[in-house]
Amino acid sequence: MFSYLSRAELLLHRINALAAISEDADGITRTFGTPAFVRGRDLVQGWMAAAGLATRLDSIGNLRARLSSPNPRAKTLVIGSHIDTVVNAGRFDGPLGVLLGLAIMEHLQAQNRPLPCHVELMAFSDEEGVRFHTTYLGSKVVAGTFDESLLPKRDATGVTLAEALAGMGGDAAQIPHDALPAAEWLGYFEVHIEQGPVLYERHVPVALVTGIAGQHRVELTWLGMAGHAGTVPMPMRQDALAAAAEFVLAAEALARASAGALVATVGKLEVRQSASNVIPGLVTCSLDLRSADATHLEAAYHELRAQAEALATRRRLHLTWSPVQQTAPVACDRTMNALLAEAIADSGYEVIPLVSGAGHDAVPISAVAPATMLFVRCFQGISHNPLENVEMPDLAAALQVAERFVELLLARQQA
Amino acid sequence: MFSYLSRAELLLHRINALAAISEDADGITRTFGTPAFVRGRDLVQGWMAAAGLATRLDSIGNLRARLSSPNPRAKTLVIGSHIDTVVNAGRFDGPLGVLLGLAIMEHLQAQNRPLPCHVELMAFSDEEGVRFHTTYLGSKVVAGTFDESLLPKRDATGVTLAEALAGMGGDAAQIPHDALPAAEWLGYFEVHIEQGPVLYERHVPVALVTGIAGQHRVELTWLGMAGHAGTVPMPMRQDALAAAAEFVLAAEALARASAGALVATVGKLEVRQSASNVIPGLVTCSLDLRSADATHLEAAYHELRAQAEALATRRRLHLTWSPVQQTAPVACDRTMNALLAEAIADSGYEVIPLVSGAGHDAVPISAVAPATMLFVRCFQGISHNPLENVEMPDLAAALQVAERFVELLLARQQA
Repeated sequence: MFSYLSRAELLLHRINALAAISEDADGITRTFGTPAFVRGRDLVQGWMAAAGLATRLDSIGNLRARLSSPNPRAKTLVIGSHIDTVVNAGRFDGPLGVLLGLAIMEHLQAQNRPLPCHVELMAFSDEEGVRFHTTYLGSKVVAGTFDESLLPKRDATGVTLAEALAGMGGDAAQIPHDALPAAEWLGYFEVHIEQGPVLYERHVPVALVTGIAGQHRVELTWLGMAGHAGTVPMPMRQDALAAAAEFVLAAEALARASAGALVATVGKLEVRQSASNVIPGLVTCSLDLRSADATHLEAAYHELRAQAEALATRRRLHLTWSPVQQTAPVACDRTMNALLAEAIADSGYEVIPLVSGAGHDAVPISAVAPATMLFVRCFQGISHNPLENVEMPDLAAALQVAERFVELLLARQQA
Repeated sequence: MFSYLSRAELLLHRINALAAISEDADGITRTFGTPAFVRGRDLVQGWMAAAGLATRLDSIGNLRARLSSPNPRAKTLVIGSHIDTVVNAGRFDGPLGVLLGLAIMEHLQAQNRPLPCHVELMAFSDEEGVRFHTTYLGSKVVAGTFDESLLPKRDATGVTLAEALAGMGGDAAQIPHDALPAAEWLGYFEVHIEQGPVLYERHVPVALVTGIAGQHRVELTWLGMAGHAGTVPMPMRQDALAAAAEFVLAAEALARASAGALVATVGKLEVRQSASNVIPGLVTCSLDLRSADATHLEAAYHELRAQAEALATRRRLHLTWSPVQQTAPVACDRTMNALLAEAIADSGYEVIPLVSGAGHDAVPISAVAPATMLFVRCFQGISHNPLENVEMPDLAAALQVAERFVELLLARQQA
């Protein structure tokens, strides 16, 4: 067998080849179902076929490659991630997990031994949700939780999701048949870049994902009274920006006090009709609140809402608190996590447990299958950006750990 | 003589007639030197002439009406305000002072008695500075502090200030001759709406202006590090919005603690490339700081700058502090203020001393002459807005007080 480093070199070569396929000449953009997406998928399918894997495209456009167990009643281990991207994306978010999975599949295929379970590699067609403002279209079909009422939904050019499927060789009528029933899953394993700075700061190549944070997204509107910056005495002011500023700091303080259990972010803040000499009368801002602990998340949400309402009352402002989105936290499977921790330790790395603050295909799949994820260090935690990068030695480390994890899992099945 | 209330009715009629002259059909806009401005000025000049006053247009387009003393060596009392407006202005900001001054001049003219000093009414041509992004063009010519380097400055359509003057009958070469030398001033008196809510809240029609606040305007840039709202732990963040929020509250707290000596406003705040799931990396905001006390103003400016720099350091952000504008506070003349307080008390009103947070023509003139101002209550403190309003009884009160003040001042000259 080749060394992990030379296999990582091939992996990086493939990641770069896929990244060269884009809707636009500058940067990387392959949103769901576009011609660039299909060309990228064709490239990956070619590699899969060359490795001797049986491949197929499913109804939602997922690319699936399978190694079957001689035991037809065996369960299925799914290794997956996505091949669609955001606009102006990096090279690794999604493709890393698919193409590292392909390296593992090639290794298993080369071993040419009877497998104790089926192993299926899935390149999901839509995780980022850019085109239809949806989430996890590809993995939801596999999990059996696809919402068919989305089929008439139109993209920015007026094309419906059903039409987009037909255009890329899919068939909406087949969607229910592409789900893997809960009883058939052995588990789900996804390798993904961290998209955060923890591993980069701690100088460790990989991390064990213990869960995926749940999220509350809220839009707040602070309505005070605009006024002349020179003529309205401080006690008479109803300054919407000062109120919003107090809220920004309250959210930050609550998250800081949680000692890592919670992150809170005000990413958007807009002063309407602003001028340097006008007291702000109307401010809108966002709140993004995440935690892997559902109880903590709900408590923080209600605490921040109460604080926002109290400060609006104290400042004589009208507050509108509009929930935008809510997702529950997902816990990774304890048994699979124990094996993944063992694989990390076996490979000689410190086991760092991390909560994923971003969503992944593991979220919908965890509803029907035991799931786990391996995070890989990325440069400064940057992602969704052309600067996204993973060093070759980290690709090798991830491959070593992932392959060891699959070995351990298969061995357990055989035992 | 007519009652103050019937004279206030005439005054309001004239204010409304002038307000009907505008560059656009909706609202009131008469910026410096435009055809609408000239038509408005013609209207006022017609009223002045009808009252038997000697009128003239000076080099910068100010309209001036004079009642001369038989003593050619007498000093001059100037009563003035401006007739230009902001875009989509109210009816009273400027015209009130000019047309109330006209009512006083008519009264003096009707008395037909030898005056102990010259009295000149000035309708300044540019106080708002909308067209050339300047301040006080009209009153600076009278004060002798006009900056001739502004003459080649162009408006948004490419017309220079010198060309604009020529187009409205002015002559830039005559500018130095239109100044009133310091030795010739008896004083300057301006009646203006408060543009703030204090009188409205206190249910009093007029106030004694003790000074005009000095101002610091600053633009701040907070450069942190953008990041994913889900994946960057709180202690690793360099959140530019949280830093700016802390500054907004620091400015507010400092001004609140000053017990009225200071106002501080962050009116503009912009998060660059903002999204609800992105930690803000770059935020710009404004600071507007005003006080009538120069020492207090400078101390607050340096205190806030130190606080901004300290919090930027603590939060590992880069702060750029860019001064935009600085004006020194102006104190009204004590002797004239004492007479104005007497006039207010004589008229039966509570004497409320107020600092003007907004600038006025009294600012440049105070550099060469003793100046004072009378503020008039306006609806909810609203100005620079079509909702700007002064009730008729308040116009009558202002006229009574102003006329009493001029009487007292003339009596002092005669004594």
